[in-house]
Amino acid sequence: TTKNNNDQVSNQGHPNLILTKAGVEKIKSQLGSIPIFDKTLQTTKEDIDAEIALGIDVPIPKDFSGGYTHARHKRNFLILQKAGALFQILEEEKYAVYVRDMLMAYAKLYPTLPVHPQTRSYARGKIFWQCLNDSNWLVYTAQAYDCIYEWLSEEERHVLENELFIPFANFISEENPQFFNRVHNHSTWGNVAVGMIALVMDHDELLEKALNGLKTDNLKAGMKDNDGGFIKVEGQKVGFLANVDEPFSPDGYYTEGPYYQRYAMYPFLIFAEALHHVKPELKIFEYKEGVLLKSVNALINLSDADGEFFPLNDGQKGMSYYSRELVTAVDIAYHFGGNNPELLSIAKKQDRVLLDDAGLAVALGIKEGKDKPFEKKSINLSDGPNGDQGGVGVLRSEDLELVFKYAGQGLSHGHYDKLSFSLYEDGEEVIQDYGLVRFVNIEQKGGGNYLKENKTWAKQTIAHNTVIQNETSHFEGKYEVGSKHHSELHFYDDINSQVQIVSAKETNAYPGTQMLRTFAIIHDKDFEKPFILDILQVNSDNENQYDLPYYYLGQIMKANFQYTVLPELKPLGNSNGYQHLWKEATGKPSSHNSKFSWLNKGNFYTITTISDAQDDLIMARTGAKDPDFNLRREPSLIIRRHAQNTVFASVIESHGNYNPVSEFAVNTYSSISNLKVIYNDENYTAIQIEDVSKKVKVLLLANKDASKLSEHILKIEDKEYKWTGPYNYKLKSE
Amino acid sequence: TTKNNNDQVSNQGHPNLILTKAGVEKIKSQLGSIPIFDKTLQTTKEDIDAEIALGIDVPIPKDFSGGYTHARHKRNFLILQKAGALFQILEEEKYAVYVRDMLMAYAKLYPTLPVHPQTRSYARGKIFWQCLNDSNWLVYTAQAYDCIYEWLSEEERHVLENELFIPFANFISEENPQFFNRVHNHSTWGNVAVGMIALVMDHDELLEKALNGLKTDNLKAGMKDNDGGFIKVEGQKVGFLANVDEPFSPDGYYTEGPYYQRYAMYPFLIFAEALHHVKPELKIFEYKEGVLLKSVNALINLSDADGEFFPLNDGQKGMSYYSRELVTAVDIAYHFGGNNPELLSIAKKQDRVLLDDAGLAVALGIKEGKDKPFEKKSINLSDGPNGDQGGVGVLRSEDLELVFKYAGQGLSHGHYDKLSFSLYEDGEEVIQDYGLVRFVNIEQKGGGNYLKENKTWAKQTIAHNTVIQNETSHFEGKYEVGSKHHSELHFYDDINSQVQIVSAKETNAYPGTQMLRTFAIIHDKDFEKPFILDILQVNSDNENQYDLPYYYLGQIMKANFQYTVLPELKPLGNSNGYQHLWKEATGKPSSHNSKFSWLNKGNFYTITTISDAQDDLIMARTGAKDPDFNLRREPSLIIRRHAQNTVFASVIESHGNYNPVSEFAVNTYSSISNLKVIYNDENYTAIQIEDVSKKVKVLLLANKDASKLSEHILKIEDKEYKWTGPYNYKLKSE
Ligand SMILES: [Ca+2]
Ligand SMILES: [Ca+2]
Ligand SMILES: [Ca+2]
Ligand SMILES: [Mg+2]
Ligand SMILES: [Mg+2]
Ligand SMILES: [Mg+2]
Ligand SMILES: [Mg+2]
Repeated sequence: TTKNNNDQVSNQGHPNLILTKAGVEKIKSQLGSIPIFDKTLQTTKEDIDAEIALGIDVPIPKDFSGGYTHARHKRNFLILQKAGALFQILEEEKYAVYVRDMLMAYAKLYPTLPVHPQTRSYARGKIFWQCLNDSNWLVYTAQAYDCIYEWLSEEERHVLENELFIPFANFISEENPQFFNRVHNHSTWGNVAVGMIALVMDHDELLEKALNGLKTDNLKAGMKDNDGGFIKVEGQKVGFLANVDEPFSPDGYYTEGPYYQRYAMYPFLIFAEALHHVKPELKIFEYKEGVLLKSVNALINLSDADGEFFPLNDGQKGMSYYSRELVTAVDIAYHFGGNNPELLSIAKKQDRVLLDDAGLAVALGIKEGKDKPFEKKSINLSDGPNGDQGGVGVLRSEDLELVFKYAGQGLSHGHYDKLSFSLYEDGEEVIQDYGLVRFVNIEQKGGGNYLKENKTWAKQTIAHNTVIQNETSHFEGKYEVGSKHHSELHFYDDINSQVQIVSAKETNAYPGTQMLRTFAIIHDKDFEKPFILDILQVNSDNENQYDLPYYYLGQIMKANFQYTVLPELKPLGNSNGYQHLWKEATGKPSSHNSKFSWLNKGNFYTITTISDAQDDLIMARTGAKDPDFNLRREPSLIIRRHAQNTVFASVIESHGNYNPVSEFAVNTYSSISNLKVIYNDENYTAIQIEDVSKKVKVLLLANKDASKLSEHILKIEDKEYKWTGPYNYKLKSE
Repeated sequence: TTKNNNDQVSNQGHPNLILTKAGVEKIKSQLGSIPIFDKTLQTTKEDIDAEIALGIDVPIPKDFSGGYTHARHKRNFLILQKAGALFQILEEEKYAVYVRDMLMAYAKLYPTLPVHPQTRSYARGKIFWQCLNDSNWLVYTAQAYDCIYEWLSEEERHVLENELFIPFANFISEENPQFFNRVHNHSTWGNVAVGMIALVMDHDELLEKALNGLKTDNLKAGMKDNDGGFIKVEGQKVGFLANVDEPFSPDGYYTEGPYYQRYAMYPFLIFAEALHHVKPELKIFEYKEGVLLKSVNALINLSDADGEFFPLNDGQKGMSYYSRELVTAVDIAYHFGGNNPELLSIAKKQDRVLLDDAGLAVALGIKEGKDKPFEKKSINLSDGPNGDQGGVGVLRSEDLELVFKYAGQGLSHGHYDKLSFSLYEDGEEVIQDYGLVRFVNIEQKGGGNYLKENKTWAKQTIAHNTVIQNETSHFEGKYEVGSKHHSELHFYDDINSQVQIVSAKETNAYPGTQMLRTFAIIHDKDFEKPFILDILQVNSDNENQYDLPYYYLGQIMKANFQYTVLPELKPLGNSNGYQHLWKEATGKPSSHNSKFSWLNKGNFYTITTISDAQDDLIMARTGAKDPDFNLRREPSLIIRRHAQNTVFASVIESHGNYNPVSEFAVNTYSSISNLKVIYNDENYTAIQIEDVSKKVKVLLLANKDASKLSEHILKIEDKEYKWTGPYNYKLKSE
């Protein structure tokens, strides 16, 4: 191995991308006295030393995302980045040698590669089956290159840049404009990959492409990728800055949803850190009023009590703020975003930090005991570049979390699920959103890629807890149409911790039909736990069939209505997702309130819903027309009603518990004795809630006037109600 | 309230049942310095003080086990027992007053009560719907009475004994001989209830009934209870001692299985402690070579890594050694059974102790750091009073636990599941036993009682991982027949930790058919984890249809055979449990090895089984003909074969894992490349296992000769194998 002489140290030199010369000096001076950093460093050293012992493997690309060559190349770039950091921090040359030798192996291989043999992608890579993964590779290896830049000879740098990095950057940009010139998480990775290597190489032309996209791309408007997303939208700005502008709302909500936001956070924030270091004049962390830092806060708030992200749109369940991307996000947000002590409590749970200046700052903060609990409260996050395309509301009370989606389409990973919701208790799903149909990186399941049931089931409206009209998905399941529309916030109010409430309208999902859905989570001392009011007003030009499913999880305890289980099971319908539901049982209301109780993970739940005598109450389960067993088998209660204008009004209670060790069953019954719509027209809806102790409450809603200042007077059954603002909850006798 | 004067203290006086005068003095002298005892005392005091504040409620009996009056009376007896102990330990009179007042309320109510209005039981109680629960009540209140005995006036004692305790004891014995004069966990409770109150009252006649049963009962042989169990068996001894003799094997295995053993442990051990205190001359802890203490060890060994009992026979999942009965069992076994330090580690996990001498001993042991980990190893437990009626083997290796049942019928809670098994990894079910169909104490579900699907599904053979011949359960599902038979151990060997093995025969389940099943768990360095060999030889006088189900839990990843999912679902059959299975898909082997992989809780599993080309491979799921949704929806792979004599030979592997946060999938494929039966006749079976690295091993089994000393010579394909003992596992080339 060659010994290189690059002894001069300056702030203009390398590393300067993520690690900096000054940062490295500071880290070295603290080593051994910063527990979480020291521990991460030790773990990293053990991992990388083991890899070095195994030797370098740069196989000829062949496999999909579940296969060997994919996994090996992915591992390689993760290791390279870490080995580079170890070289800087530990000053052991073996790490530099390892990085160089592996990069040289890639420099030898890369020019020989055709596009990847797997043909499924709209933008095939060379190392991986899609340019997206090639971009991942470059984002990480650029950091490794920066760390050994000065240690390398000029000749070696020349080889790496000309044989590997520049052709690589050109391939994923100029040669794949359909990948690079978009607003999409794919393009973000592409832009950042090119931008990172440009910063290391001080290559202005590549940096310009990274920030602002390719000047010309010869793409046709209306082209789509293999997920069905638009590639070119007329007039669309492109490049990294456009990818910050477009998908993030001013609140930091990322329109594809938290699972993809998590994936995108890494390139957004790592490149922001690099730009901050190398091009401080761009003031990237202040861009769009600091949206990149806000987005970290938004993302953490879009997780349940365990830190698992709500699976809005295409989201794989289980992904959480324990992921490596969120370690990056939290550390960078802490260091560059004003040292919010609540972020330290998340970092403490993550129990590892970045091996850089940001990670050092977090480690020091934790060491000094500055952390405070991250208190997730109710939050309303707008969607759309200007925050005016609907949004997502999360109502929180005690252990309950209700997620209400009234956002835009969410690009190609969006689902047709306007006004849908899901409910969690203490980090467990109570009423679930199905999530995606994919087993990421599990080769046996379609190469680890999206499975066809993602389109035929997961994206369809019937897969969601919202209204389906005439067994057709919102916007007829047409992406072109859905992308043009979004729901509208009616009002959101979390100031009163006793009654937190969100209300939104959807008028485009079914032309001629208006839907207004309001969720309130009510902390009422007459109930054991907060309960949820779900009021959905549907008004239409025509009579329709409306289906409203509740994808509860758990086992049925009791229904107060008669139902018949079917001796043979048939699918509930033929298309739009209905073909994937087995119809297990069907019932008719026995009274004007239908009650349905279930037990899940030791808690009892009851839905009490106001029924029309003609409603059908259908028990269904996923799994029909599923030739490869790609779907989970999970239940649903579907309320089916034929009407023109109607109100679906329900209370969802969590009550009591069962302990299989003590065998005690506590508070196993609903506390609602009578639920009634006492008023409903275009302007107002009023719901009366009577509990088992005979106390009667009313919730009054103004359906049109969302002003907090408006005064309302409404006469119902000889009683005059007066209130201010869009809603009021009170004892009826008050 | 009356102040009583009973100042004389003597060891002949009260308390002497569970707490003793000497014990109480010792406890008082240690209070404040024995953390786990102090903590339990504090928690208990808080609970009881809260109850005292709420006031006494002794409602008129009305409900089944899930209802209010049931829950209230149950709570009452648990509280009474604790309040009595608090009075002794804390010397606060309010506890004595509370116990007295509540007992007086019962003394007032009891004489007015008819039998309980719910009519389902074969032995209706007065306080509860069955004498069983009335007996629970008396076992606990006898302890409370003992604690305030001396504090009460003679007059008060007279009222309590003549209005309440003696009539109560007579009711559950003389007036319910069908309940009292049996060998059954019900009778154990009845015997102990009468025995406990007899010891407090020093009532020899009642004690004699408790120990040896009623002299005359006028019961007819062949009578059955409402679970289908025999009430009278000709020549059967009865009473407490008979209930120790009969259901416990010499190894301490309780024939009903661990769920009921746990339930029965409390009366067995609390009465043993009381007899030890009051009638030490009976030497009860030495009875039947110390079987009561051995049974605690057996029971702990019949739990998974989380302490949850294997659900053999009727067992509710989730019940564990954290239950109050096991706190009693562990503390008593520690104190009266030689201070085994491994029991202290269980007590430490339980984090509470009995408030008596035994609990004090445990608390002191823990305080002094004497605890050692309870290491669960492989174990073989015989069944039957003399240990010659089959048994249960548990093979353990690393995180895997395989439970093999080749026992007797298990009384009325037994299932028809000869040679069935279940598999666990790290406390999670991998291949499950369904357990019971009941929601204990949940009123909505049939009053908390056994549901009809317990008989039609859970007890049937098809609900188990064993062979079903011609769609008929073992012994035709006839309790009278099953009760006469048991499987026979062929051999068990856990001396070699690399190859642990158990083998048993069943010749009565299907007359004319012999089944020999062998499980080996093999720790082989060529595999990531230990793997399981499952070899089932079936020989019959006739050709039959054999079904062998595997109730795996999790989601299907891949099968190497062609299968077709059904567009509409029908039950797999009409009776014997088959009516409860939906047939989801059916396939045919594509090669001589069929492979089936699934993912469960982050681990991958594969069954590789040797197939005949004509086999059907059926994917089924529970839930058909289930009008009240009493069944869970869970999957099964069923191997169906038509043959006269055949061998089912399979390898079950746990391999690799998937992490939804890192999204890394590791070792997702089976390591078995070829599985073959290379020899099979009446005397020998030999299986050849080739792995993906081309290494070939053989397992040789002697089917008739279980002697460890016998030498075997067997020629297979020109190769001569020589070994000693009933099995041998080796490299083929060796
Ligand atoms: Ca969704
Ligand atoms: Ca969770
Ligand atoms: Ca378990
Ligand atoms: Mg969805
Ligand atoms: Mg969660
Ligand atoms: Mg069973
Ligand atoms: Mg467990």
